[in-house]
Amino acid sequence: MSTTAKLDPQVALAELQERKPDRVTIVVLSGNMDRVMSAFIIATGAASMGMQVTMFFTFWGLNAIRKPGVSSKATDWLRRAFGFLNRGGADTLPLSRFHFWGLGTRIMKLVMRRNRMPGVPELMDMAKDLGVRFIACTTTLGLMGITKDTLIDGIDQFAGVSTYLAEAKDAQVNLFI
Amino acid sequence: MSTTAKLDPQVALAELQERKPDRVTIVVLSGNMDRVMSAFIIATGAASMGMQVTMFFTFWGLNAIRKPGVSSKATDWLRRAFGFLNRGGADTLPLSRFHFWGLGTRIMKLVMRRNRMPGVPELMDMAKDLGVRFIACTTTLGLMGITKDTLIDGIDQFAGVSTYLAEAKDAQVNLFI
Amino acid sequence: MSTTAKLDPQVALAELQERKPDRVTIVVLSGNMDRVMSAFIIATGAASMGMQVTMFFTFWGLNAIRKPGVSSKATDWLRRAFGFLNRGGADTLPLSRFHFWGLGTRIMKLVMRRNRMPGVPELMDMAKDLGVRFIACTTTLGLMGITKDTLIDGIDQFAGVSTYLAEAKDAQVNLFI
Repeated sequence: MSTTAKLDPQVALAELQERKPDRVTIVVLSGNMDRVMSAFIIATGAASMGMQVTMFFTFWGLNAIRKPGVSSKATDWLRRAFGFLNRGGADTLPLSRFHFWGLGTRIMKLVMRRNRMPGVPELMDMAKDLGVRFIACTTTLGLMGITKDTLIDGIDQFAGVSTYLAEAKDAQVNLFI
Repeated sequence: MSTTAKLDPQVALAELQERKPDRVTIVVLSGNMDRVMSAFIIATGAASMGMQVTMFFTFWGLNAIRKPGVSSKATDWLRRAFGFLNRGGADTLPLSRFHFWGLGTRIMKLVMRRNRMPGVPELMDMAKDLGVRFIACTTTLGLMGITKDTLIDGIDQFAGVSTYLAEAKDAQVNLFI
Repeated sequence: MSTTAKLDPQVALAELQERKPDRVTIVVLSGNMDRVMSAFIIATGAASMGMQVTMFFTFWGLNAIRKPGVSSKATDWLRRAFGFLNRGGADTLPLSRFHFWGLGTRIMKLVMRRNRMPGVPELMDMAKDLGVRFIACTTTLGLMGITKDTLIDGIDQFAGVSTYLAEAKDAQVNLFI
């Protein structure tokens, strides 16, 4: 056994076991309804299968976790201008194609309601109930003219890229949406 | 040997070996020519290197696997309307930029043909020949007003998010395009 | 010991250790300022945490690594036309939303400058200083009407999909942006 002293199967196994609870991280950069919906479908699916899921909202993705109808409270007029243009709320995300000033998006929502499919707000509630962690990117919050008090309740953490990477390197599935 | 009884290198190794055949999963949400082309270039590249590749087509990505020239057969008028707007077929995908009502996309296709580069339809045939698995997302098929009979032949499976996650968690490369 | 001869913990451990230095690969297909910025924020963050990072620039992502103000030198008029439409340079990338013929993008850049946040050109320099590897996709360079001499200095490699996959399969974090 002495020859294998340097090679510790215990360490190998520990490392393997450490990897055991499957983890999923999703960066949500897009603010389009279709992409955000996909992110939440994967997040809720994974969480209900027992995986640990973390979602990082950045850039337009932050729109999904803004309180509906609350405009920017940035003190700076430039950020306020941007925050004004860029309305938020899980229920007001446009489709990435065929938005058609709201018509296409409304048609898709109608189809969803008729078929009793959950929309982004419902999926988001399910995600929270299933223990999906929500992290808001501090770097881009400022950039987008979004202040913390205009975000929904239930954000688990405000953090930057190092928090993301620390989670992603130990996850089995890492997606950028 | 008794002290290491709990730490079984056999299990560790088995687990490692189970990971051995490299796997790639690609979610194709985008219906843009450039993104779909990238997805197929990676898929065919990986398959020809001996990796197991699964592609999950969802939302606009479903357009890539629709029979060309066949319009929506949804019975519901709303879905039919959406299916009408959203034309399909591997050969009719627009560029994500400079589509210019078809002109930019046509220029790029011309450049490809002149340089004998395979387009999306050819890459798709290659992918099928190389054993790439095609899965159509059942959740979004209905949403997009697309019926199964208007998809190309050779779809391996109709499935949802749990099928995707079961594959993704054991894959080395997971991409969301 | 003879029964475990086939199961070599040494091999298992070696394989684990081979996985040790954390690796990140990022395919940059998008040429939008927000997505390219995210790619560089993740790349520089990972590199400063000691990870090995490789970025693969393809399609519109190639715009980020073009010399500013240098137009296409393609001999072929079709490619030249496309290269003319598709201007490059790290500092001229448009936002994916609210570009508004340059106004929205300019507002965001102003906000960034006022808050001393690095823009794409600065992040790119940081990435190079931190040892992030830049690979330009040879397959799409031609397609986009971009010639090698119009790219910035410091591209580490010109390569295709097999180079990408060889790196991605051994990386912990693989993103497609």
